[in-house]
Amino acid sequence: MTDAEIVKAWDDICKVLNKDQDELKHDILNHVGNKWSLFVIHALGIDGKMRFSNLEKHINGISQKMLTKCLRELERDGLILRTVYPEVPPKVEYELTSLGRGLLLQVTPLWLWIARHSNELNNARANYIEQMGR
Amino acid sequence: MTDAEIVKAWDDICKVLNKDQDELKHDILNHVGNKWSLFVIHALGIDGKMRFSNLEKHINGISQKMLTKCLRELERDGLILRTVYPEVPPKVEYELTSLGRGLLLQVTPLWLWIARHSNELNNARANYIEQMGR
Repeated sequence: MTDAEIVKAWDDICKVLNKDQDELKHDILNHVGNKWSLFVIHALGIDGKMRFSNLEKHINGISQKMLTKCLRELERDGLILRTVYPEVPPKVEYELTSLGRGLLLQVTPLWLWIARHSNELNNARANYIEQMGR
Repeated sequence: MTDAEIVKAWDDICKVLNKDQDELKHDILNHVGNKWSLFVIHALGIDGKMRFSNLEKHINGISQKMLTKCLRELERDGLILRTVYPEVPPKVEYELTSLGRGLLLQVTPLWLWIARHSNELNNARANYIEQMGR
């Protein structure tokens, strides 16, 4: 992104930030900051449509309760689609919507940056704390 | 980003997400999700080095208390640099570090995406709530 593109982008961003959309903003950033939500978005984005039991196997260490909660919140915000097939026993599948795919695409560079700079960020904090202590 | 690039990126991201770095993760995402922190990063990123009073004028509606808090947290995480010049009266300037500039670059596309899709995200939620109510 060039400086001019950043300035232009922020015209739009400031409009949204200045509007009273705190709840939406908060919830979207909650998905972005919640490791289990990220793992669900990532699994469905990379491996496609999946059933609950399959997702559970894909995401190491997630509890049934947490998976249920994540799926409900992601569905509420239009990021995943839940399809119930009229079969006996009923079959339920989850997939990423185009909104969800968009979020995965936006979130990946941010998280990659955090991952690659985590040492630098941690060192900055350690230095700051040390200087404050003097 | 291609699918292959996303898969590759997530190898690194998962390593960080699976490590116990919750505090760092939480705080960085706090800057990303806090409109005042974003405005500070944005102002310093676009208009360069600034004094407190100048920042205060640049950021419409921010209180002195909130600006002080934001600056302290951003400095703690190595995202901005605070320079005190040995003058009388002392002059203090704030500027973005290269880490801070990096975060601005990563955060801009995510926020632009949220800004551009806020109607879609709000509609998805309204539909979901309507369907749940039936």
